[in-house]
Amino acid sequence: MKVVIVGGVAGGASCAARLRRLDEKAEILMVERGPYVSYANCGLPYHVGGVIEKEASLLVSSEQVFRAVFGIDCRTRCEAVRISPKTKTVELKNHVTGEVTTEMYDKLVLAPGAAPIRPPLPGIDLPGVFSVRTVPDAREIREWIERGSRDDTEEHTATGFQAVDKAKRAVVVGGGYIGLEMTENLAHRGLEVTLVEMLDQVMPPLDPECAKLVAEHLEKHGVRLALNDAVAGFKQTAAGTLEVLTKSGQAYPADVVILAIGVRPETALAKAAGLEIGARGGIRVDEHMRTSDPDIFAVGDAVEVKDFVTGEWTLIPLAGPANRQGRIAADVIAGRDSRFRGTQGTSVLGIFGATVAQTGANEKSLVRQGQKDYEKVYLFPHSHAGYYPGSKTIVLKVLFRKSDGRLLGAQAMGLDGVEKRIDALAMAIQMGATVYDLEEAELCYAPAYGGAKDPVNFAGMVSADVLRGDMPISHWPAVAGQFLLDVRNPPEIAVAPVPGAVNIPLPQLRTRLAELPHDREILVICRSSQRAYYATRILLQNGFKARNLIGGLMSRSMLAAK
Amino acid sequence: MKVVIVGGVAGGASCAARLRRLDEKAEILMVERGPYVSYANCGLPYHVGGVIEKEASLLVSSEQVFRAVFGIDCRTRCEAVRISPKTKTVELKNHVTGEVTTEMYDKLVLAPGAAPIRPPLPGIDLPGVFSVRTVPDAREIREWIERGSRDDTEEHTATGFQAVDKAKRAVVVGGGYIGLEMTENLAHRGLEVTLVEMLDQVMPPLDPECAKLVAEHLEKHGVRLALNDAVAGFKQTAAGTLEVLTKSGQAYPADVVILAIGVRPETALAKAAGLEIGARGGIRVDEHMRTSDPDIFAVGDAVEVKDFVTGEWTLIPLAGPANRQGRIAADVIAGRDSRFRGTQGTSVLGIFGATVAQTGANEKSLVRQGQKDYEKVYLFPHSHAGYYPGSKTIVLKVLFRKSDGRLLGAQAMGLDGVEKRIDALAMAIQMGATVYDLEEAELCYAPAYGGAKDPVNFAGMVSADVLRGDMPISHWPAVAGQFLLDVRNPPEIAVAPVPGAVNIPLPQLRTRLAELPHDREILVICRSSQRAYYATRILLQNGFKARNLIGGLMSRSMLAAK
Repeated sequence: MKVVIVGGVAGGASCAARLRRLDEKAEILMVERGPYVSYANCGLPYHVGGVIEKEASLLVSSEQVFRAVFGIDCRTRCEAVRISPKTKTVELKNHVTGEVTTEMYDKLVLAPGAAPIRPPLPGIDLPGVFSVRTVPDAREIREWIERGSRDDTEEHTATGFQAVDKAKRAVVVGGGYIGLEMTENLAHRGLEVTLVEMLDQVMPPLDPECAKLVAEHLEKHGVRLALNDAVAGFKQTAAGTLEVLTKSGQAYPADVVILAIGVRPETALAKAAGLEIGARGGIRVDEHMRTSDPDIFAVGDAVEVKDFVTGEWTLIPLAGPANRQGRIAADVIAGRDSRFRGTQGTSVLGIFGATVAQTGANEKSLVRQGQKDYEKVYLFPHSHAGYYPGSKTIVLKVLFRKSDGRLLGAQAMGLDGVEKRIDALAMAIQMGATVYDLEEAELCYAPAYGGAKDPVNFAGMVSADVLRGDMPISHWPAVAGQFLLDVRNPPEIAVAPVPGAVNIPLPQLRTRLAELPHDREILVICRSSQRAYYATRILLQNGFKARNLIGGLMSRSMLAAK
Repeated sequence: MKVVIVGGVAGGASCAARLRRLDEKAEILMVERGPYVSYANCGLPYHVGGVIEKEASLLVSSEQVFRAVFGIDCRTRCEAVRISPKTKTVELKNHVTGEVTTEMYDKLVLAPGAAPIRPPLPGIDLPGVFSVRTVPDAREIREWIERGSRDDTEEHTATGFQAVDKAKRAVVVGGGYIGLEMTENLAHRGLEVTLVEMLDQVMPPLDPECAKLVAEHLEKHGVRLALNDAVAGFKQTAAGTLEVLTKSGQAYPADVVILAIGVRPETALAKAAGLEIGARGGIRVDEHMRTSDPDIFAVGDAVEVKDFVTGEWTLIPLAGPANRQGRIAADVIAGRDSRFRGTQGTSVLGIFGATVAQTGANEKSLVRQGQKDYEKVYLFPHSHAGYYPGSKTIVLKVLFRKSDGRLLGAQAMGLDGVEKRIDALAMAIQMGATVYDLEEAELCYAPAYGGAKDPVNFAGMVSADVLRGDMPISHWPAVAGQFLLDVRNPPEIAVAPVPGAVNIPLPQLRTRLAELPHDREILVICRSSQRAYYATRILLQNGFKARNLIGGLMSRSMLAAK
């Protein structure tokens, strides 16, 4: 059996290595258009930033290793240019010699990845405007920053990061993961960074109120944000620097521009071969990673995947799923019945000391689907016991099904202990857990690590309180004309008043119930909604109609208009 | 309805607060023998060590808060001395006035906790020999360390930790969680610490080969370890200092001694009331936390719980389960059908910069049960992408059922990213996950946080490889007389040879198969067993009998005789 694998980075390399382990006799040819296989593309922004100093660190494996250890005919700088499904052949172009050869295959695996989107804007091809996809891309950006232009080579020093960067001002276009990682890394090098984003939020996988916290964090660290503004073009100034022009009429000066407005599945080859393409623009595959041609598989960023929670087809260009898909394609080619279970889109971003992570569905996607059977809560637990030094607040948004309590998704951010909660919740979603299961979760607890009630437990308790009817909740900003009861203490209120709210501090509530109306619903407010929960319980059991404004003033500040 | 709760720390306080939320009208009386309720007993070692400087930080709540916010009749320094189940009354002794009163109850909740074991050894009551259970205990230890003896008050300085400690040498008796936390904290204060442990390992929840790594870490940080030795008694020297005498005849000088040889459920009250006590010595309760008397509940360290994985009755004195049990007792008293699902014993220890955590069954317990239907693997993944700075090796032992792949337990240790893997695995165990589910887990990945294949994925892949028959494994030290194939490279072998092993570096294996025997089983060895896995695959598919010595030389060093 001869298997040709097109693309040798994440999904392709995983597939090749796995297939060799399963089938010692298969003839495996893996071709990669670029100069490297199995490199750490997730590390590229950090190489630009100098956090990963050596380019060689990014080269996780090599053509030589694939040949020597795996017995795989691995060819770099070799591009598949045409597939002929009928003859089961693929044309390969050697980019060193220019030679085109034809290889037959029994099974073909497409792992071409996704290409940075480069819209046809005026000036997009000017020197100094970069995308970040490959090791050479990162190298060019570093060199450009160091010497200030492509030609000014005599001042370029081989010591690289040791020298003072010539580039001082960067514009990053796009506020997704790569845009934000580039923003941090350019700031880390000392550049002044402006981030231009067409949407009204950064980090599209987050809901807007959560993304707002990320935006505030970016601004706190000196990043200039231009949301709701799209790039109109790029211009070279008389001084030889760049200007990024936006639709709103702004002109942002820049010594270097990073384009990170997303990626588009590389489907040209698949399309030309007549393979089915999905509505989202990725190669359509079944759960065995098989395309519409039974002898052609596709994996990684180029394919559409089923969202594990919503069941929708989607594009999730992440390394983890790509690796799993590569393994599954290899399994199936080797005759096994492996299936891809879909993806939850679990992801994490480190940004200026903070961590932002999420898994499962966000509220935007549920709304887009017209889903009504969900509820959300916000909570603000300590990352570990509050009495142990270093504890930080985690902002946690949890989405769950109202009908059965099934956990649907979670978003979290903070300075400590964020990703481990999302990991636990990701495992919970995978296993079909409900918020009741989260209540009973038994996670690591010692004062430096968590709480006797972990944030994951709190997420379950708060959500289950809602579902059991123990705590009716309401959400900001729907408070106009409603009776607001603020149960905080006067000193807190002096600092951050809620206009129009009646104040009865929680400890006085039982003795001052007569001050409250029986004919109106009372919305209860405190800082984080914990005391408001206690107050809601008191009110409900005393015959009042009451709801907890979930997340309290902390969620109000998230949900307030910017 | 009147509910009396005996004990106001973790389980008792949780029960009281929850019950109030569920039942605004219930009359709730919570009595606590000590001076404080709801204090952070898990923080006591860190207060001794000065990491948590202020004693007040440990007082999470107070009698006043319970009264004012929860409307609970909360009495400290008040001990329940007798229960009369027939009359449904409990006698309470006020330790301030000495007065004894009788209170009736409709429901009684026992949350007396567990007491440090203090065997009747000669000299155990000498000044300077302490247990660590309460805030006053911690205060006394601090004062003793600072001034060197109970009487030498004139030199005691109120600035506490700022002053030079008079005590220089400590002996900690017992190598469990509290013993190790005290060891670290005393060392943190600058004391020279000797740890005496009767067993041949520290940290009884770990299997010995994992505990051995902890012991080595302790020794690396200057702790003198005396394993396999029991304390015979304590002696005061002429100079006024202490000596800890052991059964092996050693005498360890000490300025302060910490007894941390475990805790024993406080069952005197329950026994006197005729309540059923389990074989492990804890109060026996059903899944509703109800004792043998239907109107008496018990929660926390005093009760026996079902091990969620093995189904055995056990004692798990941990704060997380205590809190959950308190909530469940409150639910049931309020008429709800809540049930305690048992405990996994998930726990974590921070020790000299390392983290040690575990969840579910350990191998010792499976062996004790006569369980044969299990397998284990060792792996040594990076805490995050190896190419991103700061990545550390995690040592991970995973236990799973051979018949169906069900995850049974995991133990992990390392300098980074340990507890989050155990948290994900704890959630997996709770939800009945198999190792196949772990293969497909989708956890947070960015280079600073994990790997495209997370350690949890690797745990699943390695285990599933075993179960699918792709990778027969063998365990150290069962290698006598077997054919050993070492697939490492010569420079590695020069540093750490395996006596008697034939060396064929992995890249040469396919061309040197003729050097290997077809009539003997080949045990394949490398550093961590990843290359040995590749080699095993090559051998099996070429008709050889082969097994991977799982964990390679890294697990050999764990499993070698000390």
